[in-house]
Amino acid sequence: MVSDASQANATEPTPARKRVRDPEARRAAILAAARSVFAERGYAKATIREIAQRAGVTHGLVVMHFSSKEQLFLAAVPGTRDLADSVQGDAEGLAGRVAHAYVARMESADSADPFIALVRSAAGDQEAAKALLRAMREESVSAYRTVLTGPDVALRVDLLGAHLIGVTFSRYVLADGPIAAMPADELTRYLTMTLDGILFGSTGTVRSSS
Amino acid sequence: MVSDASQANATEPTPARKRVRDPEARRAAILAAARSVFAERGYAKATIREIAQRAGVTHGLVVMHFSSKEQLFLAAVPGTRDLADSVQGDAEGLAGRVAHAYVARMESADSADPFIALVRSAAGDQEAAKALLRAMREESVSAYRTVLTGPDVALRVDLLGAHLIGVTFSRYVLADGPIAAMPADELTRYLTMTLDGILFGSTGTVRSSS
Repeated sequence: MVSDASQANATEPTPARKRVRDPEARRAAILAAARSVFAERGYAKATIREIAQRAGVTHGLVVMHFSSKEQLFLAAVPGTRDLADSVQGDAEGLAGRVAHAYVARMESADSADPFIALVRSAAGDQEAAKALLRAMREESVSAYRTVLTGPDVALRVDLLGAHLIGVTFSRYVLADGPIAAMPADELTRYLTMTLDGILFGSTGTVRSSS
Repeated sequence: MVSDASQANATEPTPARKRVRDPEARRAAILAAARSVFAERGYAKATIREIAQRAGVTHGLVVMHFSSKEQLFLAAVPGTRDLADSVQGDAEGLAGRVAHAYVARMESADSADPFIALVRSAAGDQEAAKALLRAMREESVSAYRTVLTGPDVALRVDLLGAHLIGVTFSRYVLADGPIAAMPADELTRYLTMTLDGILFGSTGTVRSSS
């Protein structure tokens, strides 16, 4: 996520309320402000206005840098772009890489984590949730297209996303039942299996007889 | 769901506000009242008190018949018990039967459908959602145990449930993207594949090289 030392330093989650002149530092201040506002308000209720105020910049500057609330969310929240990054590599290990990145990312997330907040608040503000999921889907699909071919890549990626939404619901939002109770490495193992089936399973035949 | 003609008639969703004497008719009146209250209020906000009032019976009688709000929900809402019924049969065709039952059930559901209302409101009242999902899970697992054996049946059934929750979210709640856009029979075909992978996939090995 972080490309150099100065940026790593600037993205410390301390909201900068004073005016910041350096463009890179200003961008980092916007990202830090966005993380704290998304965590406090949830995705649906967060506004670019409040993020701009907290970063000490104008509304217009935020829009210039990130174009929309969805894009700002994707840039600010660790994990959404990480998942897309984990796609890169051979098709063979794809399910395992995504399963591993998802579990590693979610296990260290706290309950105020914006991604969990999104799944929670998708129920409340459907239009906001729809816009965000659409942005995440587009980003995912273009990442997967670098590894996968076929007429139904977008559909399989959407099914994979739905699977992870359902697992997030059980393990990290409701936090109840066998999915919530299993150790993280076992979850990774099961997700590798299920995601592999979603990405590479045949839709023409059901399981051959056993 | 409906075992005889008199019950079919009695379960018409017209709330009976007058006192009903016949035990079978009274049970049917409670179910009809429950369906309308769950549809209007959502699962979390529905109360046994209001359901009893609308059915023209006492709170105690509802509890005597159904023991809890979760059990009443499972009995009243078409689809939750249908899914468990569809499990019966050979292991070979299991994924296909469940996929078919899920799609058939959800395609005819309207937006006030209590099952969709549950997935929506799980975000709001977590304790209520947890209790209901626990009841559904128990019912599902005992149905699947008649067909499947193995140490991880409960876990695989939970993963299958999570998958259907995620698909419900995309297609029937947010109603956006490739999963929402595909024809019902194609969805059945893809779900047969994904559910088969969840139920019978191997966790020991990832896909052999291709």
